[in-house]
Amino acid sequence: MTSLQDYSEEVRAEVKQVRETVATLHRQLIQWNLVVWTAGNVSQRLHSADLMVIKPSGVRYEYLTPQSMVVTDLDGNLVDGAEAPSSDTASHAYVYRHMPNVFGVVHTHSTYATAWAATGRNIPCALTMMGDEFGGPVPVGPFCLIGSEEIGKGVVETLKKYPFSPAVLMKNHGPFCIGKDAESAVKAAAMTEEVAHTVWAAEQVGTPIEIQQKDIERLNDRYQHVYGQN
Amino acid sequence: MTSLQDYSEEVRAEVKQVRETVATLHRQLIQWNLVVWTAGNVSQRLHSADLMVIKPSGVRYEYLTPQSMVVTDLDGNLVDGAEAPSSDTASHAYVYRHMPNVFGVVHTHSTYATAWAATGRNIPCALTMMGDEFGGPVPVGPFCLIGSEEIGKGVVETLKKYPFSPAVLMKNHGPFCIGKDAESAVKAAAMTEEVAHTVWAAEQVGTPIEIQQKDIERLNDRYQHVYGQN
Amino acid sequence: MTSLQDYSEEVRAEVKQVRETVATLHRQLIQWNLVVWTAGNVSQRLHSADLMVIKPSGVRYEYLTPQSMVVTDLDGNLVDGAEAPSSDTASHAYVYRHMPNVFGVVHTHSTYATAWAATGRNIPCALTMMGDEFGGPVPVGPFCLIGSEEIGKGVVETLKKYPFSPAVLMKNHGPFCIGKDAESAVKAAAMTEEVAHTVWAAEQVGTPIEIQQKDIERLNDRYQHVYGQN
Amino acid sequence: MTSLQDYSEEVRAEVKQVRETVATLHRQLIQWNLVVWTAGNVSQRLHSADLMVIKPSGVRYEYLTPQSMVVTDLDGNLVDGAEAPSSDTASHAYVYRHMPNVFGVVHTHSTYATAWAATGRNIPCALTMMGDEFGGPVPVGPFCLIGSEEIGKGVVETLKKYPFSPAVLMKNHGPFCIGKDAESAVKAAAMTEEVAHTVWAAEQVGTPIEIQQKDIERLNDRYQHVYGQN
Repeated sequence: MTSLQDYSEEVRAEVKQVRETVATLHRQLIQWNLVVWTAGNVSQRLHSADLMVIKPSGVRYEYLTPQSMVVTDLDGNLVDGAEAPSSDTASHAYVYRHMPNVFGVVHTHSTYATAWAATGRNIPCALTMMGDEFGGPVPVGPFCLIGSEEIGKGVVETLKKYPFSPAVLMKNHGPFCIGKDAESAVKAAAMTEEVAHTVWAAEQVGTPIEIQQKDIERLNDRYQHVYGQN
Repeated sequence: MTSLQDYSEEVRAEVKQVRETVATLHRQLIQWNLVVWTAGNVSQRLHSADLMVIKPSGVRYEYLTPQSMVVTDLDGNLVDGAEAPSSDTASHAYVYRHMPNVFGVVHTHSTYATAWAATGRNIPCALTMMGDEFGGPVPVGPFCLIGSEEIGKGVVETLKKYPFSPAVLMKNHGPFCIGKDAESAVKAAAMTEEVAHTVWAAEQVGTPIEIQQKDIERLNDRYQHVYGQN
Repeated sequence: MTSLQDYSEEVRAEVKQVRETVATLHRQLIQWNLVVWTAGNVSQRLHSADLMVIKPSGVRYEYLTPQSMVVTDLDGNLVDGAEAPSSDTASHAYVYRHMPNVFGVVHTHSTYATAWAATGRNIPCALTMMGDEFGGPVPVGPFCLIGSEEIGKGVVETLKKYPFSPAVLMKNHGPFCIGKDAESAVKAAAMTEEVAHTVWAAEQVGTPIEIQQKDIERLNDRYQHVYGQN
Repeated sequence: MTSLQDYSEEVRAEVKQVRETVATLHRQLIQWNLVVWTAGNVSQRLHSADLMVIKPSGVRYEYLTPQSMVVTDLDGNLVDGAEAPSSDTASHAYVYRHMPNVFGVVHTHSTYATAWAATGRNIPCALTMMGDEFGGPVPVGPFCLIGSEEIGKGVVETLKKYPFSPAVLMKNHGPFCIGKDAESAVKAAAMTEEVAHTVWAAEQVGTPIEIQQKDIERLNDRYQHVYGQN
């Protein structure tokens, strides 16, 4: 087994920083009401080496510290950490290996997103916020068992068909979200739950009006290129 | 570009105060559960000059400070601030130019208000709280793309038909609310979500009983003239 | 106008204590998510004089202090306080005059209770918690305008028909709750929202099974006589 | 009546520790939004003697301290404590007497779990989280009055038919959850509400897809043997 001592000082410094980032972002999952008890996990891939930092398995959120975050390589092998890594480690690793622009992955069981996942229905694109963030519907991915890289494969295959979406609702399971770093992926997880809840609520009082494709494209283009600070 | 230094001391003092007010009021959007991540924005128009103070674009709520608030003129041109102003700046400015009694504008994507907006249905007036605050149903406005003053125009046109409402549910998008200052507009945003949620819930267990027009008028008249402190 | 100085030291001491109690209990309305912005109010009747202490009208919860609570007589006339009393003062006073065992009244617009009120439907007794607390369904009262004692009259008339219920859902408006003191009435308000939400949710996935009258009576009897500390 | 002084120092030390554990875990019921006012209760059985520690009856959560927790024997007789024990004491005791591997019991009235209980429907197993935690549907138990051990008997009988479930939804009442200690039972209570809410939401937008029995077994087996830290 490789050890963190086998890596350069630059890599070890990035590990230290990413451990802090990933530990802190787990609090955002609580703040935005995306997880219960120990469910859910955040990881971030390093830029200086083929490593990732991920939540330990089955640890309560209030006990997470930067030091408790686990470091693995991109095959999911343990490199540093006192705890066993998340059950979803192999799937995070699969996503990083197959999507080179992705440096953050987040998984939650957030209530309304998971409700859509339990029915197998994509969330129809009826909100400008969806045009902005997802460039269309939020897609459902295949049913997969937990513990292997099968989920990661399902995420990657689904995103080939929905290249603008940062989220896949894994059937019967819950959302997996990606981003250019862990913070972007956490944002995608928060937005996924918000649009899942809103379109769900819309269906109870009427028929959500789907936005036309040309308008979705204009929303998404502006959002990706103009919104926010440079 | 005009600079804040071109304005009188009185104006600069009001800018300082309004920056504090607007920054603080963003916390109310979080407290009342009206926004997620960086969505939503508050602005207030000045009384001493044709200027407004608005949230910067795409900044997380926990990082908002009075100094990060952006000052623009009423055409949306930057006057002071290190950050780019909200994407909705042109629409806030449009409202201020066309509604001279409005000194506060708030936009959210609050869940249940946005759900009604996604279906294109006005919220029927089935609550005394709606008679009080909205003087009738909460109206839906037209579908508009984001980034120009088109949304502001849609808000103003809709409120011509619903002169007692401080809120418009922009179709597929979410509520825009107005008030005599930013605090009043934030209150309207909180009330909009509350009545959206309540009437939505009522529809799931029965038929909301609409209040008669003469009673709506009596509720609204009392509320606007008697409620609260002088 | 009578002043607090016209009352004995004993009364003034009770006023001081009740002002603290009532101010503090308003925080429970926020904690249990029963009110938005300035909506809702708590009052408590004194034991030492025909006076009551009630929330000022239209003041935000974070600004409520014991000293800002308003003292009125049981006709709703101001006795002490710098602020105007709640719009519902005359109705609280009516309840105290006609129900001599009631020493606490609470009004909220809590979401699910108000949803039932908007449809005019009683909440059917499908929960042991309802047998315990309400001794049957939670009843809907008549539609009344705000600002006179008409609401209080509607509450009293409705409770004659539902003598075990500590809550009435005023039609299109929201719950009014009573108790042996303000804390009991606040508890009733929290329980009203909880059972309103739960039975509402039950109706979305099936038919709530109503509890038989003989079981309701046994639940209510035990709860009123055995539950809690002596 | 036996007194705590009749027990060994080892037992008294375990009582002290379990009182702290049980008092602290009640805060988790508030954090995960599982209880209102004084509803709900947590107990833990001791390993060093046939005793259990349980919440006092009808005490608000903010006033719970380790010292206010009540000690009883496994017939529910008071052994130590200044307050009367929870109304559900006899039922907790019944569970401990009949399920020797159970050392924690939790009861809540959490909203969505209780909604299913009010309709008499089991929650169908449509989530991998349910395969993990419950090994199938969450079962409904019989209608029982409160205050005797009848509820405990209903829980034990129901779990004979659903041996992988740590929760029973008592009809018209709410969930009772078990675990190897109080923390595990609180986790089961949080998970019960989460899956109740999610499958409830799924039913509003479609038909939840039930997971096949062979996949449920694989999920449950992995979760019970591999998930978490050793």
